[in-house]
Amino acid sequence: MKIEANNPKLSSWVDVPEGSDFPIQNLPFGVFKTNNGPHVGVAIGNQILDLAKLYNLELLGGENIFEQDSLNPLIKQGKIANRILRNKISEMLRIETSSNTPKITASVLEKVKNCLVNQADVEMLLPVQIGDYTDFYSSIDHATNVGKMFRDPANALMPNWKHIPVGYHGRSSSIIVSGQDIYRPKGQTRPDLEKPPVFGASKLMDFELEVAFITYDGKPIGDSISTDEADDYIFGLALFNDWSARDIQKWEYVPLGPFLGKNFASSLSPWIVLLDALEPFRVLGEKQDPKVLPYLEYEGNKNIDIKLQVIIQPEGAEETVVSNSNYKYMYWNMNQQLAHHTINGCNVKAGDMMASGTISGPTSGSFGSMLEISWQGSKSVTMSDGTERKFIQDNDTVIIRGHAEKDGVRVGFGEVSCKLLPAK
Amino acid sequence: MKIEANNPKLSSWVDVPEGSDFPIQNLPFGVFKTNNGPHVGVAIGNQILDLAKLYNLELLGGENIFEQDSLNPLIKQGKIANRILRNKISEMLRIETSSNTPKITASVLEKVKNCLVNQADVEMLLPVQIGDYTDFYSSIDHATNVGKMFRDPANALMPNWKHIPVGYHGRSSSIIVSGQDIYRPKGQTRPDLEKPPVFGASKLMDFELEVAFITYDGKPIGDSISTDEADDYIFGLALFNDWSARDIQKWEYVPLGPFLGKNFASSLSPWIVLLDALEPFRVLGEKQDPKVLPYLEYEGNKNIDIKLQVIIQPEGAEETVVSNSNYKYMYWNMNQQLAHHTINGCNVKAGDMMASGTISGPTSGSFGSMLEISWQGSKSVTMSDGTERKFIQDNDTVIIRGHAEKDGVRVGFGEVSCKLLPAK
Repeated sequence: MKIEANNPKLSSWVDVPEGSDFPIQNLPFGVFKTNNGPHVGVAIGNQILDLAKLYNLELLGGENIFEQDSLNPLIKQGKIANRILRNKISEMLRIETSSNTPKITASVLEKVKNCLVNQADVEMLLPVQIGDYTDFYSSIDHATNVGKMFRDPANALMPNWKHIPVGYHGRSSSIIVSGQDIYRPKGQTRPDLEKPPVFGASKLMDFELEVAFITYDGKPIGDSISTDEADDYIFGLALFNDWSARDIQKWEYVPLGPFLGKNFASSLSPWIVLLDALEPFRVLGEKQDPKVLPYLEYEGNKNIDIKLQVIIQPEGAEETVVSNSNYKYMYWNMNQQLAHHTINGCNVKAGDMMASGTISGPTSGSFGSMLEISWQGSKSVTMSDGTERKFIQDNDTVIIRGHAEKDGVRVGFGEVSCKLLPAK
Repeated sequence: MKIEANNPKLSSWVDVPEGSDFPIQNLPFGVFKTNNGPHVGVAIGNQILDLAKLYNLELLGGENIFEQDSLNPLIKQGKIANRILRNKISEMLRIETSSNTPKITASVLEKVKNCLVNQADVEMLLPVQIGDYTDFYSSIDHATNVGKMFRDPANALMPNWKHIPVGYHGRSSSIIVSGQDIYRPKGQTRPDLEKPPVFGASKLMDFELEVAFITYDGKPIGDSISTDEADDYIFGLALFNDWSARDIQKWEYVPLGPFLGKNFASSLSPWIVLLDALEPFRVLGEKQDPKVLPYLEYEGNKNIDIKLQVIIQPEGAEETVVSNSNYKYMYWNMNQQLAHHTINGCNVKAGDMMASGTISGPTSGSFGSMLEISWQGSKSVTMSDGTERKFIQDNDTVIIRGHAEKDGVRVGFGEVSCKLLPAK
């Protein structure tokens, strides 16, 4: 399927600086604060096209799904309507290659220009009111690293890992948008197994480099979504930092899984890049051996080549890159995750979120958590200011950035950034 | 604190049959279908008081939180407003003991009578739009039974069990209301560990007898709710059947917890009994040894004496009671659960749900799941029609009923009932 809005030859009359994540081939959706309440917008270069304003100028039509505090009404529209909407916006922002002038008339152009605001001038809000949030565990390098550290180096993967895209339910209420700070969580840990557990602030704070996808309304409860159908139920993707308190997690997670070690906060990037915009960056996933059960088989290129970077910025210091990874390393792709999640009849709703799990690559420079980077605290990373890190310290800011690039087109996510404040 | 609406001496001019779960001392909230859309109602005897109709007759005042498809706007009001609302409704339905006549004037009485509908004539809807759903594991007898079966009979409880009210996040989207049927889920299992996993319908379908509570809006992210404060953040309680596919669960749950073995469906009773209405039935919980950490300490009677019953009804046969348990058996109470859940700063929202985990009592007649009743399939229960059950069979209906009783007052939940249809 050819999506005209993805055409690498397109360019916009809006200035798109070199290296911007938001050329006309991207057009991600987000929600931002205005004096008239929250508005849905689309990123272009360093600007935001205010869709609520555009709607009120009668340039969009349909229902008013733009004067909203979340993208949920827009997601409710479904895939086809949003493909049409993105194409309409692309046409408004486009330069005709023949004439090198905007495709829209001068009077419409004036109106559209009035709907642009500087990204630097506004506050972004959490883009989606997330219903259910599921976290997978689908990076083989991450699962192998964890298994080597905590179980048997010779049998690092659990017996079910290559048969099931292992996942668990996380907490929606504490998912926050990039830029919102968090406090170091307090809780129960048991540093000495010979003594009773103790209470205090977590001492092993970590990030998890993840990519999340947001779903459209699925099928009724009792029905399943196949790997073939899965693309039709995926709205878009964002960057996700699944903050983890390793010491709290360690003491609590057997037998029912992670809970307070995770649910104090998770950070999401503000722009949702439509799956449509990422189609040009599809790549083939790793061959799965042993062969998976038929309901998990899939055809075609279902991984996506998205370069990912994790940065730690100590208070008042420069950024230090601590990981360069890629979304293409996923062993289980989104189609398999969605097919597995619904094979038992579990229903999915517009605005649900499913995250990848920590994305690690095969080499030590590509690990997606401090647990792996410091190999359980056995080595440290040097920051730009000379200080050392094994885990995240108070007042550190953790930033994840990501983008896909091909044929001279860069489709990016911006960033998810969050500062860890000292415990309250 | 004395709540006048709980006074055992009150009676109603609405007929309340002997043994009804819904006397004037209860007044639970629910949502039911009408020709004019969903309405919020209150159960009284075999009737429902239609609060939307009452509101439109200007007998309730305030915001229109009654012409709604969920109780969420009502829950958003908070504890004090709902206490006042319940008292107002109690007064409308009350007989003056002195005169033995309705407390309201004849003209108001006429109006209120016009707002009554037969429970038998309407369909109840899922009462709450559940945000996040958490399932605890707080019955010591259940945890001990599971530990004896799957781990070490001599060390049945996990090391963390008496220190932490262990819990995990469940799936909200597939929580359904009593009366809605479910299909036997399909999925991956590994019956023979020497062979690869297989795909098919679950062969080990089970119920879990649980009680759930619905929360009010909590504190901002980063803050905690103490055991002392917890009562103020609990809206009300309902019966809950946490359907479980034991074979799917067994193969998937290590290391991240239960997922597809649970999230195909969970059944909730339609009436939410306010915590206020259950205050007269408070009892002291079991002494906790070892002593818990200070943030989990509590004062007073925080357990509730609620008699619970599980019934299996094979297709076309009479009901068979398979368990008589009690909510008072909980080792960890709701206050401790809520304090633990928020100690790390995790926020709670109006309409979130937290369930008890399977409630088993100390004797075999009081176990809350077929896993325990059949002791892992090693013995069976005889149904009224002579058939045997180790787990739930196709076309069986599982019913949970529950009520508290004291001083001649019975405050009940009605029931949660759900039929298991064959796999699709």
